[in-house]
Amino acid sequence: MTSIEPLSGSSSIIDILDPADDRIAAFRDVRERDLTRSGQFIAEGAVVLDQILASRRFRPVSLLVLRERLDGLSARLSALPAYVPIYRAEREVFDRIAGFPVHRGVMALAEPVLASGEADVEAALEATLESRGNIVVACGLSNHDNMGAIFRNAAAFGAGAVILDERACDPLYRKAIRVSVGTVFTVPFVRWGSAAEIAERLSSMGYECLALTPNAADALRDIRDIRPRALFLGAEGDGLEDSVMSRCRPVRIEMAPGLDSLNVATSAALVLHHLAFPARS
Amino acid sequence: MTSIEPLSGSSSIIDILDPADDRIAAFRDVRERDLTRSGQFIAEGAVVLDQILASRRFRPVSLLVLRERLDGLSARLSALPAYVPIYRAEREVFDRIAGFPVHRGVMALAEPVLASGEADVEAALEATLESRGNIVVACGLSNHDNMGAIFRNAAAFGAGAVILDERACDPLYRKAIRVSVGTVFTVPFVRWGSAAEIAERLSSMGYECLALTPNAADALRDIRDIRPRALFLGAEGDGLEDSVMSRCRPVRIEMAPGLDSLNVATSAALVLHHLAFPARS
Repeated sequence: MTSIEPLSGSSSIIDILDPADDRIAAFRDVRERDLTRSGQFIAEGAVVLDQILASRRFRPVSLLVLRERLDGLSARLSALPAYVPIYRAEREVFDRIAGFPVHRGVMALAEPVLASGEADVEAALEATLESRGNIVVACGLSNHDNMGAIFRNAAAFGAGAVILDERACDPLYRKAIRVSVGTVFTVPFVRWGSAAEIAERLSSMGYECLALTPNAADALRDIRDIRPRALFLGAEGDGLEDSVMSRCRPVRIEMAPGLDSLNVATSAALVLHHLAFPARS
Repeated sequence: MTSIEPLSGSSSIIDILDPADDRIAAFRDVRERDLTRSGQFIAEGAVVLDQILASRRFRPVSLLVLRERLDGLSARLSALPAYVPIYRAEREVFDRIAGFPVHRGVMALAEPVLASGEADVEAALEATLESRGNIVVACGLSNHDNMGAIFRNAAAFGAGAVILDERACDPLYRKAIRVSVGTVFTVPFVRWGSAAEIAERLSSMGYECLALTPNAADALRDIRDIRPRALFLGAEGDGLEDSVMSRCRPVRIEMAPGLDSLNVATSAALVLHHLAFPARS
Protein backbone atom coordinates (compact mmCIF):
# COMPACT_ATOMS: atom_id res chain seq x y z
CA MET A 1 0.00 0.00 0.00
CA THR A 2 3.05 2.27 -0.37
CA SER A 3 3.38 4.67 -3.27
CA ILE A 4 6.80 5.79 -4.41
CA GLU A 5 7.21 8.86 -6.55
CA PRO A 6 10.33 10.61 -7.84
CA LEU A 7 11.08 14.10 -6.52
CA SER A 8 11.94 16.92 -8.91
CA GLY A 9 15.54 16.25 -7.85
CA SER A 10 16.79 12.74 -7.48
CA SER A 11 15.60 11.29 -4.16
CA SER A 12 12.44 9.24 -3.97
CA ILE A 13 9.45 10.00 -1.81
CA ILE A 14 8.05 6.98 -0.06
CA ASP A 15 4.72 7.10 1.74
CA ILE A 16 4.65 5.60 5.20
CA LEU A 17 1.18 4.50 6.26
CA ASP A 18 2.08 2.24 9.18
CA PRO A 19 4.01 3.58 12.20
CA ALA A 20 5.45 0.08 12.63
CA ASP A 21 7.04 0.14 9.16
CA ASP A 22 10.62 -1.18 9.43
CA ARG A 23 12.05 1.44 7.12
CA ILE A 24 11.43 4.22 9.61
CA ALA A 25 12.51 2.22 12.67
CA ALA A 26 15.24 4.76 13.51
CA PHE A 27 12.64 7.51 13.92
CA ARG A 28 10.41 5.53 16.26
CA ASP A 29 9.95 6.84 19.81
CA VAL A 30 12.73 9.28 19.13
CA ARG A 31 12.67 10.87 22.58
CA GLU A 32 13.52 7.59 24.26
CA ARG A 33 16.20 6.42 21.85
CA ASP A 34 19.90 6.68 22.08
CA LEU A 35 21.35 5.96 18.68
CA THR A 36 24.81 7.12 19.59
CA ARG A 37 26.19 3.61 19.91
CA SER A 38 25.56 3.07 16.21
CA GLY A 39 27.14 6.46 15.44
CA GLN A 40 23.88 7.60 13.85
CA PHE A 41 21.66 10.33 15.21
CA ILE A 42 18.37 12.14 14.61
CA ALA A 43 18.28 15.83 13.72
CA GLU A 44 15.06 17.86 13.65
CA GLY A 45 13.98 20.88 11.64
CA ALA A 46 14.85 22.50 8.34
CA VAL A 47 17.60 24.76 9.70
CA VAL A 48 19.43 21.82 11.23
CA LEU A 49 19.02 19.85 8.02
CA ASP A 50 20.70 22.71 6.16
CA GLN A 51 23.68 22.50 8.50
CA ILE A 52 24.05 18.77 7.87
CA LEU A 53 23.97 19.35 4.13
CA ALA A 54 26.59 22.10 4.52
CA SER A 55 28.86 19.90 6.62
CA ARG A 56 31.51 17.63 5.20
CA ARG A 57 31.69 15.55 8.36
CA PHE A 58 28.10 14.30 8.42
CA ARG A 59 25.64 13.02 5.86
CA PRO A 60 21.91 12.31 5.87
CA VAL A 61 20.86 8.65 5.79
CA SER A 62 17.13 9.15 5.43
CA LEU A 63 14.42 11.76 6.07
CA LEU A 64 10.99 11.61 7.60
CA VAL A 65 8.77 14.49 6.50
CA LEU A 66 5.26 15.54 7.40
CA ARG A 67 3.11 15.54 4.27
CA GLU A 68 1.98 19.15 4.69
CA ARG A 69 5.59 20.36 5.06
CA LEU A 70 6.84 18.75 1.87
CA ASP A 71 6.06 21.63 -0.49
CA GLY A 72 7.79 24.17 1.70
CA LEU A 73 10.90 22.00 1.84
CA SER A 74 11.09 21.07 -1.84
CA ALA A 75 14.09 23.27 -2.67
CA ARG A 76 16.11 21.70 0.13
CA LEU A 77 14.97 18.20 -0.60
CA SER A 78 15.86 18.34 -4.26
CA ALA A 79 19.45 19.09 -3.18
CA LEU A 80 19.64 15.74 -1.39
CA PRO A 81 21.79 12.99 -2.87
CA ALA A 82 19.81 10.31 -4.68
CA TYR A 83 20.63 7.60 -2.16
CA VAL A 84 18.71 9.39 0.61
CA PRO A 85 15.11 8.19 0.77
CA ILE A 86 12.45 10.66 1.89
CA TYR A 87 9.72 9.06 3.95
CA ARG A 88 6.46 10.98 3.95
CA ALA A 89 3.71 10.58 6.53
CA GLU A 90 0.43 12.21 7.53
CA ARG A 91 0.45 14.02 10.86
CA GLU A 92 -1.23 11.22 12.75
CA VAL A 93 1.23 8.58 11.54
CA PHE A 94 4.18 10.98 11.98
CA ASP A 95 3.32 11.71 15.60
CA ARG A 96 2.79 8.03 16.35
CA ILE A 97 6.19 7.22 14.87
CA ALA A 98 7.95 9.94 16.83
CA GLY A 99 6.01 9.16 19.99
CA PHE A 100 5.02 12.77 20.64
CA PRO A 101 3.46 15.67 18.68
CA VAL A 102 6.21 16.94 16.42
CA HIS A 103 6.12 20.62 15.51
CA ARG A 104 8.92 20.89 13.04
CA GLY A 105 7.68 18.24 10.65
CA VAL A 106 11.06 17.12 9.36
CA MET A 107 13.54 14.74 10.95
CA ALA A 108 16.77 13.45 9.45
CA LEU A 109 18.63 10.30 10.35
CA ALA A 110 22.30 11.15 9.83
CA GLU A 111 25.76 9.74 10.44
CA PRO A 112 29.40 10.85 10.48
CA VAL A 113 31.26 10.58 7.20
CA LEU A 114 34.63 10.06 8.87
CA ALA A 115 35.21 7.42 11.50
CA SER A 116 36.84 10.11 13.62
CA GLY A 117 36.89 13.87 13.47
CA GLU A 118 40.52 13.86 14.63
CA ALA A 119 42.12 14.90 11.33
CA ASP A 120 39.52 17.60 10.78
CA VAL A 121 40.10 19.00 14.25
CA GLU A 122 43.89 18.90 13.88
CA ALA A 123 43.54 21.03 10.76
CA ALA A 124 41.17 23.40 12.58
CA LEU A 125 43.56 23.71 15.52
CA GLU A 126 46.46 24.52 13.20
CA ALA A 127 44.40 27.15 11.37
CA THR A 128 43.26 28.67 14.66
CA LEU A 129 46.84 28.89 15.97
CA GLU A 130 47.86 30.54 12.72
CA SER A 131 45.08 33.14 12.90
CA ARG A 132 45.51 33.65 16.68
CA GLY A 133 41.91 32.60 17.16
CA ASN A 134 40.09 30.76 19.90
CA ILE A 135 38.79 27.30 20.68
CA VAL A 136 36.56 25.90 23.40
CA VAL A 137 37.19 22.93 25.69
CA ALA A 138 34.07 21.45 27.32
CA CYS A 139 34.90 19.43 30.45
CA GLY A 140 32.45 17.23 32.31
CA LEU A 141 29.39 19.04 30.98
CA SER A 142 26.38 16.79 31.42
CA ASN A 143 23.58 19.13 30.33
CA HIS A 144 22.66 18.79 26.66
CA ASP A 145 21.07 22.24 26.47
CA ASN A 146 24.30 23.80 27.67
CA MET A 147 26.35 21.71 25.25
CA GLY A 148 24.17 22.79 22.33
CA ALA A 149 24.28 26.43 23.39
CA ILE A 150 28.08 26.30 23.68
CA PHE A 151 28.31 25.17 20.05
CA ARG A 152 25.90 27.90 18.97
CA ASN A 153 28.03 30.52 20.70
CA ALA A 154 31.28 29.00 19.44
CA ALA A 155 29.92 29.32 15.90
CA ALA A 156 28.62 32.86 16.46
CA PHE A 157 32.03 34.10 17.58
CA GLY A 158 34.15 32.06 15.21
CA ALA A 159 35.74 29.59 17.62
CA GLY A 160 37.78 27.17 15.52
CA ALA A 161 36.90 23.92 17.27
CA VAL A 162 35.40 22.35 20.38
CA ILE A 163 37.39 19.75 22.33
CA LEU A 164 35.43 17.46 24.66
CA ASP A 165 36.97 15.74 27.63
CA GLU A 166 36.16 12.10 28.36
CA ARG A 167 33.25 13.01 30.65
CA ALA A 168 31.44 15.60 28.54
CA CYS A 169 28.04 14.65 27.13
CA ASP A 170 27.40 13.94 23.45
CA PRO A 171 26.82 16.99 21.19
CA LEU A 172 24.98 14.69 18.76
CA TYR A 173 22.26 13.96 21.27
CA ARG A 174 18.88 15.13 19.99
CA LYS A 175 18.39 18.04 22.36
CA ALA A 176 21.95 19.32 22.00
CA ILE A 177 21.58 19.34 18.23
CA ARG A 178 18.35 21.32 18.46
CA VAL A 179 19.67 23.94 20.88
CA SER A 180 22.86 24.28 18.80
CA VAL A 181 20.70 25.22 15.77
CA GLY A 182 22.74 22.62 13.89
CA THR A 183 26.15 24.19 14.58
CA VAL A 184 27.34 20.85 16.02
CA PHE A 185 27.60 19.87 12.36
CA THR A 186 29.72 22.80 11.30
CA VAL A 187 32.04 23.50 14.25
CA PRO A 188 34.67 20.72 14.25
CA PHE A 189 34.77 18.76 17.50
CA VAL A 190 36.57 15.75 18.90
CA ARG A 191 36.75 13.91 22.21
CA TRP A 192 40.17 13.64 23.83
CA GLY A 193 41.16 12.29 27.27
CA SER A 194 41.06 14.00 30.62
CA ALA A 195 40.71 17.75 30.96
CA ALA A 196 44.22 18.00 32.44
CA GLU A 197 45.71 16.09 29.50
CA ILE A 198 43.88 18.37 27.09
CA ALA A 199 45.26 21.45 28.85
CA GLU A 200 48.76 19.96 28.65
CA ARG A 201 48.43 19.16 24.96
CA LEU A 202 46.95 22.52 23.95
CA SER A 203 49.53 24.45 25.99
CA SER A 204 52.36 22.61 24.25
CA MET A 205 50.79 23.48 20.89
CA GLY A 206 50.92 27.16 21.79
CA TYR A 207 47.43 27.87 23.13
CA GLU A 208 46.95 29.94 26.25
CA CYS A 209 44.41 28.05 28.34
CA LEU A 210 41.79 30.22 30.07
CA ALA A 211 39.50 29.20 32.91
CA LEU A 212 36.74 31.21 34.51
CA THR A 213 36.81 31.68 38.24
CA PRO A 214 35.17 34.44 40.29
CA ASN A 215 38.33 35.18 42.27
CA ALA A 216 40.70 35.71 39.33
CA ALA A 217 42.83 38.85 39.41
CA ASP A 218 42.14 39.55 35.74
CA ALA A 219 38.70 40.50 34.56
CA LEU A 220 37.72 39.76 31.00
CA ARG A 221 38.38 43.36 29.96
CA ASP A 222 41.95 43.09 31.26
CA ILE A 223 42.74 40.62 28.51
CA ARG A 224 43.63 42.86 25.62
CA ASP A 225 46.31 41.10 23.62
CA ILE A 226 45.41 38.76 20.81
CA ARG A 227 46.84 35.26 20.84
CA PRO A 228 45.52 31.74 20.33
CA ARG A 229 43.42 30.79 23.32
CA ALA A 230 41.53 27.77 24.59
CA LEU A 231 38.58 28.51 26.86
CA PHE A 232 38.03 25.70 29.37
CA LEU A 233 34.44 25.30 30.56
CA GLY A 234 33.39 23.08 33.45
CA ALA A 235 29.97 21.87 34.49
CA GLU A 236 27.81 24.41 36.31
CA GLY A 237 28.17 23.69 39.99
CA ASP A 238 31.24 21.45 39.87
CA GLY A 239 33.53 23.65 37.79
CA LEU A 240 37.02 22.53 36.77
CA GLU A 241 39.38 20.35 38.78
CA ASP A 242 42.49 21.81 40.38
CA SER A 243 44.71 19.82 38.01
CA VAL A 244 43.11 21.75 35.15
CA MET A 245 42.93 25.13 36.89
CA SER A 246 46.66 24.98 37.62
CA ARG A 247 47.36 24.78 33.88
CA CYS A 248 45.04 27.69 33.02
CA ARG A 249 45.17 31.45 33.29
CA PRO A 250 42.29 32.42 35.57
CA VAL A 251 39.90 35.10 34.40
CA ARG A 252 36.68 36.40 35.85
CA ILE A 253 33.51 37.84 34.40
CA GLU A 254 32.54 40.94 36.33
CA MET A 255 29.08 40.81 37.84
CA ALA A 256 26.85 42.81 40.12
CA PRO A 257 27.98 42.68 43.77
CA GLY A 258 26.90 39.55 45.60
CA LEU A 259 26.09 37.60 42.47
CA ASP A 260 28.07 34.82 40.89
CA SER A 261 25.55 33.08 38.77
CA LEU A 262 25.80 32.83 35.04
CA ASN A 263 24.94 30.02 32.68
CA VAL A 264 28.06 28.25 31.39
CA ALA A 265 27.16 28.79 27.72
CA THR A 266 26.40 32.45 28.38
CA SER A 267 29.80 32.78 30.05
CA ALA A 268 31.37 31.24 26.96
CA ALA A 269 29.58 33.78 24.75
CA LEU A 270 30.93 36.67 26.82
CA VAL A 271 34.50 35.43 26.68
CA LEU A 272 34.48 34.42 23.01
CA HIS A 273 32.89 37.72 21.97
CA HIS A 274 35.46 39.66 23.96
CA LEU A 275 38.40 37.70 22.53
CA ALA A 276 37.13 37.88 18.95
CA PHE A 277 36.13 41.55 19.07
CA PRO A 278 38.24 43.31 21.69
CA ALA A 279 37.21 46.80 22.68
CA ARG A 280 38.75 49.55 20.59
CA SER A 281 41.18 51.80 22.37
CA MET B 1 -3.97 10.29 60.41
CA THR B 2 -1.95 13.48 60.14
CA SER B 3 0.72 14.37 62.66
CA ILE B 4 1.62 17.98 63.27
CA GLU B 5 4.84 18.90 64.99
CA PRO B 6 6.42 22.29 65.65
CA LEU B 7 9.66 23.11 63.83
CA SER B 8 12.64 24.49 65.74
CA GLY B 9 11.55 27.86 64.38
CA SER B 10 7.91 28.79 64.28
CA SER B 11 6.24 27.07 61.34
CA SER B 12 4.47 23.75 61.78
CA ILE B 13 5.26 20.59 59.88
CA ILE B 14 2.21 18.73 58.66
CA ASP B 15 2.45 15.22 57.27
CA ILE B 16 0.57 14.61 54.05
CA LEU B 17 -0.29 10.97 53.51
CA ASP B 18 -2.92 11.29 50.82
CA PRO B 19 -2.11 12.95 47.46
CA ALA B 20 -5.77 14.03 47.29
CA ASP B 21 -5.48 16.04 50.53
CA ASP B 22 -7.15 19.42 50.00
CA ARG B 23 -4.45 21.34 51.82
CA ILE B 24 -1.90 20.66 49.09
CA ALA B 25 -4.32 21.18 46.19
CA ALA B 26 -2.16 23.97 44.74
CA PHE B 27 0.76 21.58 44.29
CA ARG B 28 -1.24 18.94 42.48
CA ASP B 29 -0.29 18.16 38.86
CA VAL B 30 1.94 21.18 38.93
CA ARG B 31 3.12 20.84 35.34
CA GLU B 32 -0.40 21.21 33.97
CA ARG B 33 -1.53 24.05 36.20
CA ASP B 34 -1.66 27.69 35.51
CA LEU B 35 -2.12 29.51 38.77
CA THR B 36 -1.37 32.91 37.32
CA ARG B 37 -5.01 33.97 37.27
CA SER B 38 -5.08 33.74 41.05
CA GLY B 39 -1.80 35.62 41.25
CA GLN B 40 -0.19 32.70 43.04
CA PHE B 41 2.57 30.56 41.61
CA ILE B 42 4.73 27.53 42.38
CA ALA B 43 8.49 27.84 42.82
CA GLU B 44 10.82 24.84 43.02
CA GLY B 45 14.11 24.24 44.75
CA ALA B 46 16.00 25.64 47.70
CA VAL B 47 17.83 28.37 45.80
CA VAL B 48 14.59 29.75 44.44
CA LEU B 49 13.02 29.59 47.88
CA ASP B 50 15.91 31.71 49.18
CA GLN B 51 15.15 34.35 46.57
CA ILE B 52 11.50 34.49 47.59
CA LEU B 53 12.47 34.92 51.24
CA ALA B 54 14.92 37.67 50.23
CA SER B 55 12.29 39.48 48.17
CA ARG B 56 9.95 42.08 49.57
CA ARG B 57 7.55 41.72 46.66
CA PHE B 58 6.63 38.07 47.14
CA ARG B 59 5.86 35.86 50.09
CA PRO B 60 5.51 32.12 50.60
CA VAL B 61 2.00 30.80 51.23
CA SER B 62 2.90 27.18 51.96
CA LEU B 63 5.65 24.67 51.30
CA LEU B 64 5.65 21.05 50.21
CA VAL B 65 8.84 19.23 51.19
CA LEU B 66 10.12 15.73 50.60
CA ARG B 67 10.68 14.00 53.94
CA GLU B 68 14.31 13.11 53.19
CA ARG B 69 15.12 16.73 52.28
CA LEU B 70 13.76 18.23 55.48
CA ASP B 71 16.95 17.99 57.55
CA GLY B 72 19.07 19.65 54.86
CA LEU B 73 16.58 22.51 54.65
CA SER B 74 16.07 23.07 58.37
CA ALA B 75 18.07 26.31 58.58
CA ARG B 76 15.99 27.83 55.77
CA LEU B 77 12.72 26.51 57.06
CA SER B 78 13.18 27.86 60.54
CA ALA B 79 13.46 31.33 58.99
CA LEU B 80 9.93 31.04 57.61
CA PRO B 81 7.19 33.15 59.15
CA ALA B 82 4.91 31.20 61.47
CA TYR B 83 1.88 31.51 59.22
CA VAL B 84 3.50 29.38 56.50
CA PRO B 85 2.66 25.70 56.89
CA ILE B 86 5.23 23.13 55.80
CA TYR B 87 3.67 20.05 54.29
CA ARG B 88 5.87 16.98 54.43
CA ALA B 89 5.45 13.90 52.23
CA GLU B 90 7.27 10.68 51.42
CA ARG B 91 8.69 10.43 47.90
CA GLU B 92 5.85 8.31 46.56
CA VAL B 93 3.15 10.68 47.80
CA PHE B 94 5.20 13.73 46.74
CA ASP B 95 5.61 12.48 43.16
CA ARG B 96 1.95 11.59 42.96
CA ILE B 97 0.98 15.06 44.13
CA ALA B 98 3.28 16.78 41.65
CA GLY B 99 2.33 14.40 38.85
CA PHE B 100 5.93 13.65 37.88
CA PRO B 101 9.17 12.59 39.63
CA VAL B 102 10.40 15.70 41.39
CA HIS B 103 14.16 16.01 41.86
CA ARG B 104 14.43 19.09 43.96
CA GLY B 105 12.19 17.95 46.76
CA VAL B 106 10.92 21.35 47.79
CA MET B 107 8.15 23.42 46.24
CA ALA B 108 6.74 26.69 47.50
CA LEU B 109 3.34 28.17 46.78
CA ALA B 110 3.91 31.92 46.76
CA GLU B 111 2.11 35.15 45.94
CA PRO B 112 2.86 38.83 45.37
CA VAL B 113 2.76 41.05 48.45
CA LEU B 114 1.76 44.15 46.50
CA ALA B 115 -1.17 44.22 44.18
CA SER B 116 1.09 45.77 41.56
CA GLY B 117 4.83 46.12 41.26
CA GLU B 118 4.36 49.57 39.74
CA ALA B 119 5.59 51.61 42.71
CA ASP B 120 8.55 49.33 43.22
CA VAL B 121 9.51 49.62 39.58
CA GLU B 122 9.09 53.38 39.57
CA ALA B 123 11.57 53.58 42.44
CA ALA B 124 13.96 51.22 40.63
CA LEU B 125 13.72 53.28 37.44
CA GLU B 126 14.50 56.47 39.35
CA ALA B 127 17.49 54.87 41.05
CA THR B 128 18.76 53.49 37.75
CA LEU B 129 18.50 56.90 36.08
CA GLU B 130 20.39 58.41 38.99
CA SER B 131 23.20 55.86 38.80
CA ARG B 132 23.28 55.90 34.99
CA GLY B 133 22.53 52.20 34.99
CA ASN B 134 20.59 49.92 32.68
CA ILE B 135 17.21 48.26 32.44
CA VAL B 136 15.76 45.62 30.14
CA VAL B 137 12.52 45.74 28.14
CA ALA B 138 11.19 42.35 27.02
CA CYS B 139 8.79 42.64 24.09
CA GLY B 140 6.65 39.81 22.72
CA LEU B 141 8.86 37.09 24.18
CA SER B 142 6.86 33.88 24.33
CA ASN B 143 9.55 31.44 25.43
CA HIS B 144 9.68 30.91 29.20
CA ASP B 145 13.27 29.64 29.15
CA ASN B 146 14.38 32.83 27.46
CA MET B 147 12.37 34.95 29.86
CA GLY B 148 13.95 33.22 32.86
CA ALA B 149 17.44 33.52 31.37
CA ILE B 150 16.92 37.23 30.71
CA PHE B 151 16.16 37.78 34.41
CA ARG B 152 19.20 35.75 35.42
CA ASN B 153 21.41 37.87 33.17
CA ALA B 154 19.73 41.10 34.26
CA ALA B 155 20.55 40.19 37.86
CA ALA B 156 24.11 39.13 37.04
CA PHE B 157 24.91 42.46 35.43
CA GLY B 158 22.94 44.67 37.75
CA ALA B 159 20.09 45.77 35.51
CA GLY B 160 17.70 47.82 37.64
CA ALA B 161 14.40 46.49 36.37
CA VAL B 162 12.67 44.52 33.64
CA ILE B 163 9.70 46.06 31.80
CA LEU B 164 7.39 43.67 29.96
CA ASP B 165 5.23 44.71 27.06
CA GLU B 166 1.63 43.55 26.84
CA ARG B 167 2.55 40.48 24.78
CA ALA B 168 5.50 39.13 26.76
CA CYS B 169 5.01 35.85 28.63
CA ASP B 170 4.76 35.58 32.41
CA PRO B 171 8.07 35.51 34.38
CA LEU B 172 6.22 33.77 37.22
CA TYR B 173 5.50 30.73 35.11
CA ARG B 174 7.10 27.63 36.60
CA LYS B 175 9.78 27.11 33.96
CA ALA B 176 10.75 30.78 33.81
CA ILE B 177 11.20 30.84 37.59
CA ARG B 178 13.44 27.79 37.46
CA VAL B 179 15.66 29.03 34.63
CA SER B 180 15.91 32.44 36.31
CA VAL B 181 17.37 30.75 39.42
CA GLY B 182 14.78 32.76 41.34
CA THR B 183 15.95 36.18 40.13
CA VAL B 184 12.37 36.92 38.97
CA PHE B 185 11.77 37.54 42.68
CA THR B 186 14.59 40.01 43.17
CA VAL B 187 14.74 42.00 39.92
CA PRO B 188 11.74 44.38 39.96
CA PHE B 189 9.47 43.95 36.95
CA VAL B 190 6.18 45.32 35.72
CA ARG B 191 3.99 44.96 32.66
CA TRP B 192 3.24 48.15 30.73
CA GLY B 193 1.46 48.60 27.38
CA SER B 194 2.79 48.28 23.88
CA ALA B 195 6.51 48.20 23.15
CA ALA B 196 6.28 51.52 21.30
CA GLU B 197 4.55 53.17 24.26
CA ILE B 198 7.23 51.84 26.57
CA ALA B 199 9.97 53.26 24.35
CA GLU B 200 8.18 56.61 24.34
CA ARG B 201 7.80 56.65 28.10
CA LEU B 202 11.36 55.57 28.88
CA SER B 203 12.82 58.06 26.40
CA SER B 204 10.91 60.90 28.02
CA MET B 205 12.26 59.80 31.40
CA GLY B 206 15.82 60.13 30.08
CA TYR B 207 16.70 56.58 29.05
CA GLU B 208 18.47 55.93 25.79
CA CYS B 209 16.62 53.02 24.19
CA LEU B 210 18.85 50.41 22.52
CA ALA B 211 17.76 47.74 20.07
CA LEU B 212 19.86 44.98 18.55
CA THR B 213 19.94 44.67 14.80
CA PRO B 214 22.62 43.03 12.64
CA ASN B 215 22.83 46.01 10.26
CA ALA B 216 23.44 48.72 12.85
CA ALA B 217 26.32 51.10 12.21
CA ASP B 218 27.47 50.89 15.82
CA ALA B 219 28.87 47.69 17.24
CA LEU B 220 28.59 47.06 20.95
CA ARG B 221 32.21 48.13 21.51
CA ASP B 222 31.47 51.49 19.87
CA ILE B 223 29.22 52.37 22.80
CA ARG B 224 31.65 53.76 25.32
CA ASP B 225 29.85 56.49 27.19
CA ILE B 226 27.92 55.73 30.33
CA ARG B 227 24.31 56.84 30.56
CA PRO B 228 21.00 55.33 31.58
CA ARG B 229 19.94 52.84 28.95
CA ALA B 230 17.01 50.57 28.23
CA LEU B 231 17.80 47.46 26.22
CA PHE B 232 14.80 46.40 24.11
CA LEU B 233 14.62 42.67 23.36
CA GLY B 234 12.23 41.12 20.87
CA ALA B 235 11.25 37.51 20.33
CA GLU B 236 13.77 35.37 18.47
CA GLY B 237 12.62 35.26 14.88
CA ASP B 238 10.16 38.13 14.93
CA GLY B 239 12.32 40.81 16.51
CA LEU B 240 11.00 44.27 17.26
CA GLU B 241 8.40 46.21 15.29
CA ASP B 242 9.38 49.21 13.20
CA SER B 243 7.45 51.51 15.53
CA VAL B 244 9.82 50.43 18.32
CA MET B 245 12.99 50.32 16.25
CA SER B 246 12.41 53.91 15.15
CA ARG B 247 12.53 55.02 18.79
CA CYS B 248 15.73 53.08 19.55
CA ARG B 249 19.41 53.50 18.85
CA PRO B 250 20.40 50.47 16.78
CA VAL B 251 23.41 48.46 17.87
CA ARG B 252 24.86 45.20 16.62
CA ILE B 253 26.73 42.35 18.24
CA GLU B 254 29.69 41.43 16.08
CA MET B 255 29.73 37.83 14.97
CA ALA B 256 31.69 35.51 12.71
CA PRO B 257 31.04 36.23 9.01
CA GLY B 258 27.89 34.66 7.64
CA LEU B 259 26.34 34.06 11.05
CA ASP B 260 23.59 35.96 12.71
CA SER B 261 22.29 33.58 15.30
CA LEU B 262 22.42 34.24 19.00
CA ASN B 263 19.96 33.42 21.71
CA VAL B 264 18.05 36.50 22.88
CA ALA B 265 19.05 36.08 26.54
CA THR B 266 22.68 35.54 25.55
CA SER B 267 22.51 38.75 23.50
CA ALA B 268 21.16 40.53 26.57
CA ALA B 269 24.08 39.21 28.64
CA LEU B 270 26.61 40.55 26.13
CA VAL B 271 25.04 44.00 26.04
CA LEU B 272 24.42 44.31 29.79
CA HIS B 273 27.95 43.14 30.61
CA HIS B 274 29.43 45.62 28.16
CA LEU B 275 27.34 48.50 29.48
CA ALA B 276 28.02 47.68 33.13
CA PHE B 277 31.73 46.98 32.70
CA PRO B 278 33.00 48.93 29.70
CA ALA B 279 36.49 48.10 28.45
CA ARG B 280 39.26 50.10 30.07
CA SER B 281 41.07 52.49 27.78
